[in-house]
Amino acid sequence: MKLSHIIEKLNINYSLNQKDDIDIVGLNTLEKAKINEISFLENSKYLSDLKNTKAAAVFIKKYFINDIPLNSIALICDEPYVNLAHSSSFFKYPLIKTSGSKPNIGSNTQIMSNVHLGKDVIIGNNCTIMSGSFIGDGVVIGSNTIIYANVTIYTNCKVGDNCIIHSGTVIGSDGFGFATNKIGKHIKIYQNGNVIIQNDVELGANCTIDRAVFNSTIIKTGTKIDNLVHIAHNCQIGEYTLLAGQVGIAGSTNLGKRVIIGGQSGVSGHLNISSNTIITSRAGITKNIKNGGIWSGFPMFEHTKWLKLQAKISKLLK
Amino acid sequence: MKLSHIIEKLNINYSLNQKDDIDIVGLNTLEKAKINEISFLENSKYLSDLKNTKAAAVFIKKYFINDIPLNSIALICDEPYVNLAHSSSFFKYPLIKTSGSKPNIGSNTQIMSNVHLGKDVIIGNNCTIMSGSFIGDGVVIGSNTIIYANVTIYTNCKVGDNCIIHSGTVIGSDGFGFATNKIGKHIKIYQNGNVIIQNDVELGANCTIDRAVFNSTIIKTGTKIDNLVHIAHNCQIGEYTLLAGQVGIAGSTNLGKRVIIGGQSGVSGHLNISSNTIITSRAGITKNIKNGGIWSGFPMFEHTKWLKLQAKISKLLK
Amino acid sequence: MKLSHIIEKLNINYSLNQKDDIDIVGLNTLEKAKINEISFLENSKYLSDLKNTKAAAVFIKKYFINDIPLNSIALICDEPYVNLAHSSSFFKYPLIKTSGSKPNIGSNTQIMSNVHLGKDVIIGNNCTIMSGSFIGDGVVIGSNTIIYANVTIYTNCKVGDNCIIHSGTVIGSDGFGFATNKIGKHIKIYQNGNVIIQNDVELGANCTIDRAVFNSTIIKTGTKIDNLVHIAHNCQIGEYTLLAGQVGIAGSTNLGKRVIIGGQSGVSGHLNISSNTIITSRAGITKNIKNGGIWSGFPMFEHTKWLKLQAKISKLLK
Repeated sequence: MKLSHIIEKLNINYSLNQKDDIDIVGLNTLEKAKINEISFLENSKYLSDLKNTKAAAVFIKKYFINDIPLNSIALICDEPYVNLAHSSSFFKYPLIKTSGSKPNIGSNTQIMSNVHLGKDVIIGNNCTIMSGSFIGDGVVIGSNTIIYANVTIYTNCKVGDNCIIHSGTVIGSDGFGFATNKIGKHIKIYQNGNVIIQNDVELGANCTIDRAVFNSTIIKTGTKIDNLVHIAHNCQIGEYTLLAGQVGIAGSTNLGKRVIIGGQSGVSGHLNISSNTIITSRAGITKNIKNGGIWSGFPMFEHTKWLKLQAKISKLLK
Repeated sequence: MKLSHIIEKLNINYSLNQKDDIDIVGLNTLEKAKINEISFLENSKYLSDLKNTKAAAVFIKKYFINDIPLNSIALICDEPYVNLAHSSSFFKYPLIKTSGSKPNIGSNTQIMSNVHLGKDVIIGNNCTIMSGSFIGDGVVIGSNTIIYANVTIYTNCKVGDNCIIHSGTVIGSDGFGFATNKIGKHIKIYQNGNVIIQNDVELGANCTIDRAVFNSTIIKTGTKIDNLVHIAHNCQIGEYTLLAGQVGIAGSTNLGKRVIIGGQSGVSGHLNISSNTIITSRAGITKNIKNGGIWSGFPMFEHTKWLKLQAKISKLLK
Repeated sequence: MKLSHIIEKLNINYSLNQKDDIDIVGLNTLEKAKINEISFLENSKYLSDLKNTKAAAVFIKKYFINDIPLNSIALICDEPYVNLAHSSSFFKYPLIKTSGSKPNIGSNTQIMSNVHLGKDVIIGNNCTIMSGSFIGDGVVIGSNTIIYANVTIYTNCKVGDNCIIHSGTVIGSDGFGFATNKIGKHIKIYQNGNVIIQNDVELGANCTIDRAVFNSTIIKTGTKIDNLVHIAHNCQIGEYTLLAGQVGIAGSTNLGKRVIIGGQSGVSGHLNISSNTIITSRAGITKNIKNGGIWSGFPMFEHTKWLKLQAKISKLLK
């Protein structure tokens, strides 16, 4: 979509030089935006990202206009995040593709009855896709993968080789992203990224893995996830990680390799949890963890400290 | 069903005057019962509701017989709640309607393959209903609404305009209501109400919104709900509210407008949470909140107090 | 599968006497193994079970070789649990049976469209199986049972009479069982047991009941379970128990009769919770409960103590 068209649709006051009227292909963060993408600055803590952005244009408040680099156009507005939300709808993928290739199915792959296969679907060899599953447009599935009954995989998501996806699990539903405007209405930020499940991953029953707002939510090789686990948009879950039942990981959090999280624990958004970290059951993790270790409780403590603290607390009863 | 028939089936000892033998159309609370409904009094804290009830008849212990108004018949029994449960089965909706109209589908609405549309279903214009979804008898869906794959909407529920319902979500499953009898058996209270989802609502993946026991569970306009959220029977969720992943709201709780609840928090049943309240993640709310504010923890505290308290607690380690 | 074949496939160094080369039919714990099953000893706390095991053979570290009874063959290896995992794949049930009987459906049972019925399925009288449900091979369902839309029941599970299974619930998905090898890779332990749901059980929407690794996960008669509840592999949930929304029970835990657990609580694995125990909402139970009572909090306390403790804690604010 032409930049001029976006500017016009959003009623942004900017007279675009014709040579700058490039084709915009999507939205992205300041840090990751390419030269044909638009970004935004709402929160001043991302000012340093602004200075280095490659974005073609940036939704921005007038106040920050001097911080925008020469290669980017300032799209001045009162509510940059709301404008991002409005513009996200211009790039949303079609709900149901009307054109595209027939599914490309490998040898010895069994598709049971009542499976929906969208356009441009590619499935490898020796897979089993069981009844009631929905494989959206553009989904790519590797070889030797089992999709149990009533699984839903949304458009453009990828599942690797040797994966097992249990029933009721949803891969690629929209991340929970809204921009609240001045009158308190929540404007949807279309989640135009996807989910990538690498190889040798097992997902339990009734899990939800949300698609990224931009780019990809990623579950890396060898990771095993129990039932009713929620992975929000833009998370990266490292290799050989174990997440027990009913764990929730909020948006944009990265887990390293070989992380273990006990049942019913939660991790806040935008955190980095280092490799080899162990989080015990029913913990609430709200800060980055840099050097592994065992963590417990909410508020969180190192496990041995948490045990001591609980002993001290129980003495209050005496 | 004739009142005499109910009295007979439940072995209630009451000789009904023929002119009082009206058609009973359902059950309800003392407060909301209409003149052709039956109610019950189990707990003396509802005595004031008894005095003002319009119910045709009330299951009631002998002890409270003098408090029943003249317009109501006292159906004296040892276990009023158990009798309510037994009588609820007389009013249950049919699992699968055998008669009724064919679905009435608006223009430009797309129904994919393998969608079940029950009798008397009405769907507006420009909707998309994706494969594997189940639209029960009597369900009404507005215009411009998207129902993703493998959604289940039970009988008689309503979904408004411009809604998005993600995969695996269940709307209208039975509320968790049982009356435990003297020998410890849990008698099902049939949930004969429904769910109403108003306009501009988005429900994440694998949520469960239970139908009301009487009347409606309501999700009001503009509210957005993340994945794996549980809304129990008879809740009312106010306008422009945001509920993050894995939140649970117990039965008959009302949230006001623009409430925000962080991930993995829970709210007990029969509470009123005022508009503009913010509840942080992993909180357990057990009391009414009257004037908004930010609340945290379990037990719950105002957020600033909770932070102070946690600081004090952590000092116990020293 | 011949024992010699297993020994060879796993590269175990053992020269089997031909008369000992029996047919092995499966794997089991030391305690429950039959004379044609294999077991394992990884953790020395099960040494007493080793001494009494009937297992034909046991994966075991060299160190424990003198403790194995005469009737069992010691399959010496460095990683007994990993060998158990590898051997579990030899006994996995087929994903989709290619031979077997057509479904045997009782009188007055209604199967809606788009229901998958596997081989050797048996369903009693007066049942309703709604659209989108998946009834795996060898599943047995009693009479008067309702399976709502989009339920998934995996191979060989059993559901009794007068049960109600709400939409989106998954019965018999794989328990979360992996053996982590020396290089940190998680080897799947195939879950070759099943789930047994006895009579008069109601399961809410989007629950997950995992199949046992060996033997059965059991939900006993008259128990009612709310939405989004997770029951891990090998649990036994006693009669007339009530589990509220979003509860999680970790693996191999037994609940007695008439247990009540409030919303969002969790119970750790390998525990015994006695009959008539009440666990309030948002509790985390980590120890056996022997004599009922009411329990709260995390760490857990008797409810009255927990209330006192919270009162003491809140005084820290002053």
